[in-house]
Amino acid sequence: MAEAKILDGVGRILDGVAMAAEIKGEAAKLAAAFAEKTGRAPGLAVVLVGENPASQVYVRSKLKLARELGFHSVEHRPAADIDRAGLLALIAQLNADPAVDGILVQLPLPPHLDADDAIAAISPEKDVDGFHVVNAGKLFAGLPGFVPCTPLGCLKLIKSVQPNLAGANAVVVGRSNIVGKPMAHLLLQENCTVTIAHSKTRDLPAVVAGADVLVAAVGRPSMIPGKWIKPGAIVVDVGINRVPALDGKTKLVGDVDFESAKHVAGAITPVPGGVGPMTVAYLMVNTCRAAYLRAGLDWGGV
Amino acid sequence: MAEAKILDGVGRILDGVAMAAEIKGEAAKLAAAFAEKTGRAPGLAVVLVGENPASQVYVRSKLKLARELGFHSVEHRPAADIDRAGLLALIAQLNADPAVDGILVQLPLPPHLDADDAIAAISPEKDVDGFHVVNAGKLFAGLPGFVPCTPLGCLKLIKSVQPNLAGANAVVVGRSNIVGKPMAHLLLQENCTVTIAHSKTRDLPAVVAGADVLVAAVGRPSMIPGKWIKPGAIVVDVGINRVPALDGKTKLVGDVDFESAKHVAGAITPVPGGVGPMTVAYLMVNTCRAAYLRAGLDWGGV
Repeated sequence: MAEAKILDGVGRILDGVAMAAEIKGEAAKLAAAFAEKTGRAPGLAVVLVGENPASQVYVRSKLKLARELGFHSVEHRPAADIDRAGLLALIAQLNADPAVDGILVQLPLPPHLDADDAIAAISPEKDVDGFHVVNAGKLFAGLPGFVPCTPLGCLKLIKSVQPNLAGANAVVVGRSNIVGKPMAHLLLQENCTVTIAHSKTRDLPAVVAGADVLVAAVGRPSMIPGKWIKPGAIVVDVGINRVPALDGKTKLVGDVDFESAKHVAGAITPVPGGVGPMTVAYLMVNTCRAAYLRAGLDWGGV
Repeated sequence: MAEAKILDGVGRILDGVAMAAEIKGEAAKLAAAFAEKTGRAPGLAVVLVGENPASQVYVRSKLKLARELGFHSVEHRPAADIDRAGLLALIAQLNADPAVDGILVQLPLPPHLDADDAIAAISPEKDVDGFHVVNAGKLFAGLPGFVPCTPLGCLKLIKSVQPNLAGANAVVVGRSNIVGKPMAHLLLQENCTVTIAHSKTRDLPAVVAGADVLVAAVGRPSMIPGKWIKPGAIVVDVGINRVPALDGKTKLVGDVDFESAKHVAGAITPVPGGVGPMTVAYLMVNTCRAAYLRAGLDWGGV
């Protein structure tokens, strides 16, 4: 085994809030330059079906940020009982709208609507969430396309402490289409040896112990203790789990047990304040990039 | 570490010729049933640009097999200097031809033509090679689509000796779009813990040593010796490398050193006679499946 540590030292905190602020600043500059060249701002359309309270909070924060960065943003709020044809017609209208560069259909949808179906209706060049099969296929094939925002944010955090990942052993715990699988492809593009672990993995501690780069995205509170982690490893925690706190209230924790892991990991993201802010920052980057590409402008962005 | 062996015993030979014969027999039956229902045979169109001698051999064997199994097959042989527009027009004509269910553009193309470009022009529902980004994206997302023939053949060989792969450690050496990456996704769908290794992997012997299932697809003759292999492992060798033989002629060898590996592996494919025959058999399966799906018939096939 190559026993070289990927990082020297221990316990560096990967501050997602600060890094996201930088990225949002870049996105704002790119949006301003776009507006100067084209006479319009990059446009983001968000579709929120029904009244899911958590979705309302997410959508509001995305739209607020888009406005703050100088984007044109529009919100569509069809009633929870909109039928498939109605939703697809709305998406078709947004596909055809020249002022809209990015379309985001907030998930989950009500049970009578199919998320795959809705996402398939989004024009791939406006699919700033990177969920469309065409964009998944491009990521698979190493072709330029839109990559989901959370793994983009994770990679940025990882590369902030170690830009050269070639040959590193990367372990992704979780195999969702929106985090685990795209994360694995991004790390493969960085020339990592990539292992995808999941609920059926037999000996997760042994798999985690081999990771120079560990991305946890399973949604099980504090399931990965520090003692599993390779000294010096870069640990990125995508989990956001609400658990009871000592004071009788609740608190957010990740999939990694931060308190024990921070003494072993070379660098680690906190929860909250790690990956979360990066995701929404990359939504703005993707939207801005969509605008540049649709306008035929060179994209030299983040 | 889970030290249970995935197979008991050692040295079982995975006979790709015999298994491919079975699959071809199934494909012939499915083609006959299709013809009975629809009044026409499943149709395969092969496009061979120019005079590459190896490509000519491959194409001839694919067409011969298609005819033997009762498929309708057509060959298109544009001259090596056909331009992009000409090739795309030919593909468009085949997309529109109701008698054609599968379209295969034999690679490599002459240098002035771009393979990605040609493949993107094939209608995804006729992309029986499974190379189109839409089909790659569907494989990524776990949606039904066309999967490349070689990894399909590998998985069939693996499951012939161990149908339940859940929790097994699978290692894929090689990360090509047509073998390594789709193989990794197929093994992930089987609930393996999947590691993708490649030329930048730091300690390949250690990675290979952890594999219950090993798929080698790198194209380096006999690079994996038996001593790297976990006892009882299922070893599938995609490599086909021509090397000098003792008699002054040449011979074909795989990426695995068969002579040393067969004493350690629980089951292993020979080269030749392992994966190779499976690939062309699955081309026929994919073509037959394309015919069924296009005709709106239930596909209960191989």
